[in-house]
Amino acid sequence: MKPLDPWGSGIIEDEKYRRLIKEFGISPLDELKHEIENPDIYVRRGIDFGHRDLDKWLKDARKGNAAVLTGIKPSGRFHLGNLITAQKLIHYQHTYNVTAFYTVADFEAFIDNHVPFEACIKYARDNVADLIALGLDVDNAYIYLQSQNTKVMKLCFLAASKVTNNMLKAVYGERSIGLYMCALVQVGDILLPQDEEFGGAKSVLVPVGIDQDPHIRLTRDIARKYNLIPPAAIYHKLLRGLGGKEKMSKRSPMSYITLSDDERTLRKKIFAAFTGGKGTSEQQRREGGNPEICSVFELAKFFFVKDDGELKEIYERCREGRILCGECKNLIYQHAAAFFREHRSKKSEAMELAKRLVKPRV
Amino acid sequence: MKPLDPWGSGIIEDEKYRRLIKEFGISPLDELKHEIENPDIYVRRGIDFGHRDLDKWLKDARKGNAAVLTGIKPSGRFHLGNLITAQKLIHYQHTYNVTAFYTVADFEAFIDNHVPFEACIKYARDNVADLIALGLDVDNAYIYLQSQNTKVMKLCFLAASKVTNNMLKAVYGERSIGLYMCALVQVGDILLPQDEEFGGAKSVLVPVGIDQDPHIRLTRDIARKYNLIPPAAIYHKLLRGLGGKEKMSKRSPMSYITLSDDERTLRKKIFAAFTGGKGTSEQQRREGGNPEICSVFELAKFFFVKDDGELKEIYERCREGRILCGECKNLIYQHAAAFFREHRSKKSEAMELAKRLVKPRV
Repeated sequence: MKPLDPWGSGIIEDEKYRRLIKEFGISPLDELKHEIENPDIYVRRGIDFGHRDLDKWLKDARKGNAAVLTGIKPSGRFHLGNLITAQKLIHYQHTYNVTAFYTVADFEAFIDNHVPFEACIKYARDNVADLIALGLDVDNAYIYLQSQNTKVMKLCFLAASKVTNNMLKAVYGERSIGLYMCALVQVGDILLPQDEEFGGAKSVLVPVGIDQDPHIRLTRDIARKYNLIPPAAIYHKLLRGLGGKEKMSKRSPMSYITLSDDERTLRKKIFAAFTGGKGTSEQQRREGGNPEICSVFELAKFFFVKDDGELKEIYERCREGRILCGECKNLIYQHAAAFFREHRSKKSEAMELAKRLVKPRV
Repeated sequence: MKPLDPWGSGIIEDEKYRRLIKEFGISPLDELKHEIENPDIYVRRGIDFGHRDLDKWLKDARKGNAAVLTGIKPSGRFHLGNLITAQKLIHYQHTYNVTAFYTVADFEAFIDNHVPFEACIKYARDNVADLIALGLDVDNAYIYLQSQNTKVMKLCFLAASKVTNNMLKAVYGERSIGLYMCALVQVGDILLPQDEEFGGAKSVLVPVGIDQDPHIRLTRDIARKYNLIPPAAIYHKLLRGLGGKEKMSKRSPMSYITLSDDERTLRKKIFAAFTGGKGTSEQQRREGGNPEICSVFELAKFFFVKDDGELKEIYERCREGRILCGECKNLIYQHAAAFFREHRSKKSEAMELAKRLVKPRV
């Protein structure tokens, strides 16, 4: 298989997830599911499908020697792709009472998306306000910008001294020096919780989309070379874009919903989204729809319908032709709009705190 | 010609300096010599042989819009190779009343020499104490460690976003990602004085050995892309090692003198050094010696015999067989020892200040 592309925008077909598990030595999540306390919707609904060393992480977390880590590239508003990892970060922070590390990858935003560092600050504040609104306990969190963190830079150079150009090429394919550097900075991010400042070696769980696995693999290699604990990861399937193709990504503006969309925009996007409906209402009533390929059902499943029973019901009604796409879109829009309204209100309260946490370097 | 190698240890034959001038577009210094106020021994004695934009720098320095910059890799004690650039830094700082930037390249010491960051701090303090003892005005200087400077890292990424892997290969040859990163950090170092923090765009003079020209060329390219002023450089010939071969470098311990050598060691090294003497005293009295290839004469010329008249006399006496190597070594040892004694005393006074200036990151 080709190297996974953390900077790309393809989606991965379902059967490929199984091949990824085989090919890259990812462990299937199924056998571990029952050991996860208070599983979130991503675990319960099979959106999370694989992991590395999650079993070890669970043990260390119960012993109080663990952390959870994710990050964001501050190149725009928080979108639903970001929401997955953010919710997981917060979920594991609370469930296992571990410190949540949140890295704002402004070096990557600059290199990969040409976002100037000053603009990154603005986006970072907005992103962090979203995170707080989603429930992050900032008193048990460490939030930072890459460009302001000298420790991460040291770890980046520690990483650089242990990789060859061929290793980088094998993991990422042929890339510019700038992207390779971003990858090594990200290794630094993932190793940071094991720095002495934070109490030394510990298990670190990184909830990520499977497309980010190259970073995990590289970091695990390097961690071993410094007698650190290879980071654990839990992998989720990629969210389809609203057009039904490509992952939901800032790269294709029509494909994604941001947490800052107003309700009119939200409604418009949901109503224009690709579904698993049939050519005519009649046909759909007769044959049923296909929620498996429906990007609106995916919104319900990933985010907006929190109750498993209700989700199951929507699924079955669709399958049996008992709900048509228009009605279903409206239903899911109502759920989404309620979430958005509450989020907006919490976020506006969180903004001041976010500004205090994210400051331009003096 | 092959790319120059800033990480190598070869010396360059005299005729090659002329070819370098042609091939890499370096300007010969001769035509500019008379415009340099209060020329130091490196200019007066033809040790400095080439430059880039020194004419522009002189103009800007007179207008008060300039800086001078050099650095050290904190991988050991200050040796005579470091002394050249240090003396030049201090000379231009005082003569033109410009801020002296001094970068402690601990990222490079780590990647290239595997010096751990904690050890770099120790060396850095020692190196900075040497610098102060040599006369640096710390009130008009900016001294920092790469690993502690987030601005340099930003500039490094600005640089990374403007280079291709092929550019790096053309300038440096095929290198590890770590060394490429060091090169880009060094670009950041050289651009730092033009940061807004220091008043924005200005002429920056970098006194360097010709082997460091790749860094200068790369930085000039990148400066142009950001509408900054391409840094100026003044190039000196490389100091021969005491064995008469290789440049004086930490890589070959027998080849170099450090400012921390005691007088016995100093004496031993000078007396064991390669000279331009003949096979027998008689032959030398008859035919004369050859100061041009003599590493002891080079010590006199580069460092220890400050008076041009006296240096000329030593040269002529050697040429005409009127001084033999033993006597000459003793003479130059006496000069060196006097310099070392004074330096040691000044350095011990400077140590406290150096410790205040160089601190481990908290």
